[in-house]
Amino acid sequence: MHIGFVGLGQMGAAIAANILKAGFDLTLWNRSADKAAPLVAAGATLADSPCALASGCDIVLSILADDRALDAVLDGEDGLLAGLRPGALHISMSTIAVATAEAVRDRHVARGQHFLSAPVFGRPDAAAAGKLSVVAAGDAADIDRAEPLLRAIGHKLFRVGDDPPAANLIKLCGNFMLMAAVEAMAEAMTLAEKGGAGGTTLLEVMTNTLFDALAYRNYGPMLAERRFHPAGFPAALGLKDMRLVGAAAEDSRVPMPLLSLLRDRLVETIAKEGEDIDWSGIGLTVAKNAGL
Amino acid sequence: MHIGFVGLGQMGAAIAANILKAGFDLTLWNRSADKAAPLVAAGATLADSPCALASGCDIVLSILADDRALDAVLDGEDGLLAGLRPGALHISMSTIAVATAEAVRDRHVARGQHFLSAPVFGRPDAAAAGKLSVVAAGDAADIDRAEPLLRAIGHKLFRVGDDPPAANLIKLCGNFMLMAAVEAMAEAMTLAEKGGAGGTTLLEVMTNTLFDALAYRNYGPMLAERRFHPAGFPAALGLKDMRLVGAAAEDSRVPMPLLSLLRDRLVETIAKEGEDIDWSGIGLTVAKNAGL
Amino acid sequence: MHIGFVGLGQMGAAIAANILKAGFDLTLWNRSADKAAPLVAAGATLADSPCALASGCDIVLSILADDRALDAVLDGEDGLLAGLRPGALHISMSTIAVATAEAVRDRHVARGQHFLSAPVFGRPDAAAAGKLSVVAAGDAADIDRAEPLLRAIGHKLFRVGDDPPAANLIKLCGNFMLMAAVEAMAEAMTLAEKGGAGGTTLLEVMTNTLFDALAYRNYGPMLAERRFHPAGFPAALGLKDMRLVGAAAEDSRVPMPLLSLLRDRLVETIAKEGEDIDWSGIGLTVAKNAGL
Amino acid sequence: MHIGFVGLGQMGAAIAANILKAGFDLTLWNRSADKAAPLVAAGATLADSPCALASGCDIVLSILADDRALDAVLDGEDGLLAGLRPGALHISMSTIAVATAEAVRDRHVARGQHFLSAPVFGRPDAAAAGKLSVVAAGDAADIDRAEPLLRAIGHKLFRVGDDPPAANLIKLCGNFMLMAAVEAMAEAMTLAEKGGAGGTTLLEVMTNTLFDALAYRNYGPMLAERRFHPAGFPAALGLKDMRLVGAAAEDSRVPMPLLSLLRDRLVETIAKEGEDIDWSGIGLTVAKNAGL
Repeated sequence: MHIGFVGLGQMGAAIAANILKAGFDLTLWNRSADKAAPLVAAGATLADSPCALASGCDIVLSILADDRALDAVLDGEDGLLAGLRPGALHISMSTIAVATAEAVRDRHVARGQHFLSAPVFGRPDAAAAGKLSVVAAGDAADIDRAEPLLRAIGHKLFRVGDDPPAANLIKLCGNFMLMAAVEAMAEAMTLAEKGGAGGTTLLEVMTNTLFDALAYRNYGPMLAERRFHPAGFPAALGLKDMRLVGAAAEDSRVPMPLLSLLRDRLVETIAKEGEDIDWSGIGLTVAKNAGL
Repeated sequence: MHIGFVGLGQMGAAIAANILKAGFDLTLWNRSADKAAPLVAAGATLADSPCALASGCDIVLSILADDRALDAVLDGEDGLLAGLRPGALHISMSTIAVATAEAVRDRHVARGQHFLSAPVFGRPDAAAAGKLSVVAAGDAADIDRAEPLLRAIGHKLFRVGDDPPAANLIKLCGNFMLMAAVEAMAEAMTLAEKGGAGGTTLLEVMTNTLFDALAYRNYGPMLAERRFHPAGFPAALGLKDMRLVGAAAEDSRVPMPLLSLLRDRLVETIAKEGEDIDWSGIGLTVAKNAGL
Repeated sequence: MHIGFVGLGQMGAAIAANILKAGFDLTLWNRSADKAAPLVAAGATLADSPCALASGCDIVLSILADDRALDAVLDGEDGLLAGLRPGALHISMSTIAVATAEAVRDRHVARGQHFLSAPVFGRPDAAAAGKLSVVAAGDAADIDRAEPLLRAIGHKLFRVGDDPPAANLIKLCGNFMLMAAVEAMAEAMTLAEKGGAGGTTLLEVMTNTLFDALAYRNYGPMLAERRFHPAGFPAALGLKDMRLVGAAAEDSRVPMPLLSLLRDRLVETIAKEGEDIDWSGIGLTVAKNAGL
Repeated sequence: MHIGFVGLGQMGAAIAANILKAGFDLTLWNRSADKAAPLVAAGATLADSPCALASGCDIVLSILADDRALDAVLDGEDGLLAGLRPGALHISMSTIAVATAEAVRDRHVARGQHFLSAPVFGRPDAAAAGKLSVVAAGDAADIDRAEPLLRAIGHKLFRVGDDPPAANLIKLCGNFMLMAAVEAMAEAMTLAEKGGAGGTTLLEVMTNTLFDALAYRNYGPMLAERRFHPAGFPAALGLKDMRLVGAAAEDSRVPMPLLSLLRDRLVETIAKEGEDIDWSGIGLTVAKNAGL
């Protein structure tokens, strides 16, 4: 089985390395070809274009920064859509709009190509360790044939239905819940700090009782230590994701005031701290706004 | 060691039963004496007043609905303050205002009495099972002498400093974080539902990845099944708690917009659904406001 | 001077009638030609396409429902851009995105055509009475030559700079301030009502003291009488406008929590009351959420 | 008719001066007696206590900083309640809680004394010019006998029912609407500023069209010029008022998310800018949070 991989950002490079390590035959494409060098050294092949890559592969995975980057890879005579053979499978791991996933699905279907959405949960260190959680939606037979590949990437695989955009919605909802947990911790820790009980003390009690979960165990210490650089996930991408949640919510007529709060927090944090702070840097804004 | 216990509500009755079961000599007082009957049948003694109870005890625990109820027990010639011997210890488990805890501490200290704040996390079923988490603050020697008693009540004991009000602040912050988690889940699940991915599917992915914690595992299914009656913790008490968090936040000059959102949600839920809905019933408001 | 007019919705039809009444030579185009009948009967000419209309005019005014409708009029071989002569002037009165106004400006400039943004404040009755307020931005000489025309439409003309998108931003900010005033009135009147002072009494005091302004005098009675149908300005268009404000705010990195509140209110109102309620119908949601 | 006046703060001193100027026989009391000196020089008499003052007066007006200050004036053997004759009238102009007004009313009624609530709208300069707006509630006959006095204070008098607390609720709602208008202007002007249209330009368009009202004409320029010191009305008092609105709203079960936003803004502004900024200084927070 020939595997293609498009998008060698922080996450993509780590994922591709694991695919290679698992013994798959791997062809790569990235906008900046130099990012591919270490993987080529480890045995991967570099393609000239998404089209060229796609034409030789059974399954192509892509993980790109946003909807526009994905469209740029798909479109045109050098694009993935032009190259992928009928019956071959494109698995999109990008965090993109639900509406974009619908459009991509329709374009593949119109060409007899297969399509899965399979976004992942986990930061770059989890990607490197092969410990991502993969949320896949699409035709069950397609998930079946992709499963060995997806297992090389993540230790958990969730099947969330047969319509690809459902996976994108789950991913967006998850990112919203993460940001919400960060905001809740930040407000509570700031109050505990200024009120004399101590933010770290609060965190210790909470993560050993009701909130003994990764979301709190990962982000709590970042907040306590104000460790927001370098960004594992930059605030600007976080804002993009919250905007996508908002677009889905407006389309579905779901008022989400907590989401709105988080969007404003991210805008404020970027306005004050710059674009390259981690998205959990909203906690810095919470603290500063209380005069800390 | 003679133990006194004041306040036989849903939580208090379960806690008192565990104290009795652990072999302590127990005297009770409750505003409505009939609530004491099962415990008296099991070996406890009933006192005529908080003062009478306190005068014969080494340690008195109290767990009452709100600040006013606690003051009513403390004040007057029949009150706990009048009866407690110098050197004896009052442990307050109620969820009360930080400012109230400060005042109660000062009144005890002025009389040579000792005082701990030791609020608990856990709903009535956890109380019955002796599986509460106890958050204690006050003099370390007082926590030491109370420890066997507190171990009979909860399987976890956290020491959060030597000033009692710190424990009350931790408790209030924890309840805020719980409500925040409920709001986040409710908004996300409503979007997943209306957007076609399914609220239950979302919940399953989240509680098996980033949110594998009691807060989400307990409240998620209540939201999914819209199971808000009978109330384990009524919305009116939840609103009271959020008001206390808000009072502490205003005193400490900490803006908490997420808290504000939760207060409005609780007010709205009570206005629309009545006083006797569970505090997680804010999820019903979230769903209805999206037209579900 | 030959004038063209595109877009005969509720607002457009009233504006076009006033232009005709002022004695201008007027050519019309509308997607549904039947809307033009009364104006043709009164002396206007009907064109076959935006291109045909534009090719014979010195100034073309357009007022369309949204960005997409404007683009549809501009684009293609039948489009306005294709027809407008170099040196001729297009005045866009639509409430559109700042970014869209920038793009339209650039496209006209590239063809040697002139462009003004001149959105208006006022509801259909003000349009019919020629009492709109016109907010114009663009080259001063262009505003000068358009002034007689704009005076036929509105009794007030504001010049807000020489870059067209500035007028669009002013218009969007104004609509935001209107919605904010409606929300403030609705919350205050609901409290006055439930608290026993009376919503109408409050309104009378306020509009005779600090809030003696059209925004409050127009919308206050609508709220007091719950008069939200038929919609003078439908909630769905209001939501569109708030979305455009939000897009400008995110682009400019301006956190606007009050805007966020209004967006959620509109989504909620549409989810519960349907698409065809007036945008001031958020007041109905405010009242219902308080149990009224 | 003998008039008593209690409370010579910035507002009170200006009001008392107008009463004196109108020819009324005036007796004063203030916690710090030195504030009375200019008025005594102009013909007023200084009393030793609220009780002494009240015992010789037909009507006593009071205007105090908060609920606690009012209670301090009313209570005890030197207090106003002890001194006021049956049938004599106390007019409270303070901005106090609705619940406090209810309690004060009941205490007066129990003594056969009469009571009006008559809070005012207007800042110190309006008070000095006798141009306050007076909002009075209580027995119509009492308002009748007080009318000449109230006309000396304000150029507008509103009668809002026969139960005194209704006037307090109207006053609180008005202050809420003012703060809401400030927030709306601040967000819009910040967006206009960063987006290139200009905050002052926006303000000029708005105050000449939909928002041609005192609230916008007074506060708009303060925002535009960032003129927040010295405080005409300090943020800490503004926060107190918003807390009283919130208490009334929670009691009446009215969710008010816009109010919540304003409370958080005031807390944030005080945390960052200190206690002595004008309440409209929330606009500074809005601007700074956008990176200005």
